[in-house]
Amino acid sequence: MPLGARAYDIVIAPDAIDSAGARLAAMFPGARYGIVTDDNVASAQLPRLAASLDAAGLAHSEILVPAGEASKSWGHLQTVVDAILAARLERSDILIALGGGVIGDLAGFAASIARRGMDFVQIPTSLLAQVDSSVGGKTGINSSHGKNLVGAFHQPRLVLADLAALETLPPRQFAAGYAELAKYGLIDDEDLFFWLEANYPEIQAGGPARGEAIARACAAKARVVAEDERETGNRALLNLGHTFGHALEKATGYSDRLLHGEGVAIGMVLAHRFSAKLGLAPSQDAGRVEAHLKNAGLPTTLADIPGDLPPTPVLMDAIGQDKKVSRGALTFILTRGIGRAFIEKNVDPQTVATFLEEIR
Amino acid sequence: MPLGARAYDIVIAPDAIDSAGARLAAMFPGARYGIVTDDNVASAQLPRLAASLDAAGLAHSEILVPAGEASKSWGHLQTVVDAILAARLERSDILIALGGGVIGDLAGFAASIARRGMDFVQIPTSLLAQVDSSVGGKTGINSSHGKNLVGAFHQPRLVLADLAALETLPPRQFAAGYAELAKYGLIDDEDLFFWLEANYPEIQAGGPARGEAIARACAAKARVVAEDERETGNRALLNLGHTFGHALEKATGYSDRLLHGEGVAIGMVLAHRFSAKLGLAPSQDAGRVEAHLKNAGLPTTLADIPGDLPPTPVLMDAIGQDKKVSRGALTFILTRGIGRAFIEKNVDPQTVATFLEEIR
Repeated sequence: MPLGARAYDIVIAPDAIDSAGARLAAMFPGARYGIVTDDNVASAQLPRLAASLDAAGLAHSEILVPAGEASKSWGHLQTVVDAILAARLERSDILIALGGGVIGDLAGFAASIARRGMDFVQIPTSLLAQVDSSVGGKTGINSSHGKNLVGAFHQPRLVLADLAALETLPPRQFAAGYAELAKYGLIDDEDLFFWLEANYPEIQAGGPARGEAIARACAAKARVVAEDERETGNRALLNLGHTFGHALEKATGYSDRLLHGEGVAIGMVLAHRFSAKLGLAPSQDAGRVEAHLKNAGLPTTLADIPGDLPPTPVLMDAIGQDKKVSRGALTFILTRGIGRAFIEKNVDPQTVATFLEEIR
Repeated sequence: MPLGARAYDIVIAPDAIDSAGARLAAMFPGARYGIVTDDNVASAQLPRLAASLDAAGLAHSEILVPAGEASKSWGHLQTVVDAILAARLERSDILIALGGGVIGDLAGFAASIARRGMDFVQIPTSLLAQVDSSVGGKTGINSSHGKNLVGAFHQPRLVLADLAALETLPPRQFAAGYAELAKYGLIDDEDLFFWLEANYPEIQAGGPARGEAIARACAAKARVVAEDERETGNRALLNLGHTFGHALEKATGYSDRLLHGEGVAIGMVLAHRFSAKLGLAPSQDAGRVEAHLKNAGLPTTLADIPGDLPPTPVLMDAIGQDKKVSRGALTFILTRGIGRAFIEKNVDPQTVATFLEEIR
């Protein structure tokens, strides 16, 4: 990740957790470690990480939070920060986020504000975290007003993506992460999207294409973030599908009804369909995107979400509260076709509301 | 405040609040404003600020918190951030901190994490905030583990120090701010300290020397912060008196028993006495410092604090939890005499404990 003095490595390997101890010992002499993880990851991966740190003689303590998006809350943020202080971790010590996107966002934000900022390391164990949330420094929690509305830009010092951890990932979680992976193709790299279509069986089965896909996604994200760390410009392209997606996540209470990646999958299809409706993009591209995401086990329409959704005005309210708003006008990531996304800052809210009514 | 792209002006004037509207309108075209303030300042100064913003045609909403250090809490942080989001303030809008150090620390931290960071303006109305906390970008709240242990470095876009606001400041609050002012002389400018001794009556009475003293303090702080924004080196000198002071504040429950500046006053005297005991500084300097701070209406010894203090091991525990700790060794700001403070990173905890026992 090329960010000048704050540049960091992204290691993608089957044994990234097992070799973590040796790597950390070399990078941070004398540091102690706090490991933030959740119940699920604790049983699956924490023993591997603890063994690796023990073998390298590194002192560590654990901070457990419940699994699930609901842990990105004020209450759990305070719990993690208090645990950091209670463990007397100092500015020169290291917080490790071991888990999926929720753990990375929560632990990274806690690291950014504990003692006004301590270093942290991402060890993403979900596909979503490996291809997206662990890279780029966005951290945060959710608010009753919307998702990720409270947080900080805080870059990790190192990202260790462990491919073995993906072997135990439930298929639904794998699919949710795949939505973010496919996103990089849709934004500005149609060759990547076509390659993903062709190689999806091998990626899904865990062959060599899986590691290659993750590396290509990380490289794509690093390139965008390096050019615009604070999202004053093109970094917003990474939000393709996210404005619709965040509103749907809010409408479903950030619950298991709709995982983040699932909301993004629906949101990306809607962004393509909305762009087609505006005459910006060919509608067959929207169909091709939807077909591939559906093939990858993802929901692609509002009807795919179990249970009732709130009325359109409530969805529009959530869209208006998204961070991607400036001076009242709605900003959307629209597209001219696969691999040709762009930022549109002057989207008329009424046009969006009409579109949402039409597709319900 | 020279910080490259994040440089900002510090305006010190009798009518800084009254001219705020015109100044802000010129700096931030199109922005809306959220004003964070407390009950006390709301009655004394909010009408002036509201009138100034109204006259310039600037939209604003108010976010009120109770007066006092207890507002630097997780609960009030959440309240302020939620109010920012509920008011739909956007990244391009401006949060104004109108009040003393508590308001500046709390509002600045809220601004740093709302929507991952929005701009804010400091309008300090206490002497302490004008000479110290409003300048330099340290923001935060207190934790049950200690003071300012949760926070962020977030520089304001502008500081407006209103001299008229000091006219209504209670004498005890003025004295507490004066401790931080005198600190700049004690750190590295004996001429400033001697000038403060000579001009104290005029500073206290509100003559022209008061504005000059505030300007000299801000210039001193800006110089230190510009060289070391993130406190990896000499910025720690600004913590002179603060390690002892923070421990005493914690011991008195962050209450009216001991204001922050009062804790710093006692802490600075203790830092001088401790340095003298170690043979580093002449003991007559400690006496001179104590005499001047006492003359300015400040407490200077543990016995000056009303009520009982906890036993020395409890104070030592608080000292050990202070942020200025590295790898277990205690870091103190010690001195070789007035204007000759330095950072000592290897202070033996037992020596400090023995010193505290001797002076009780």
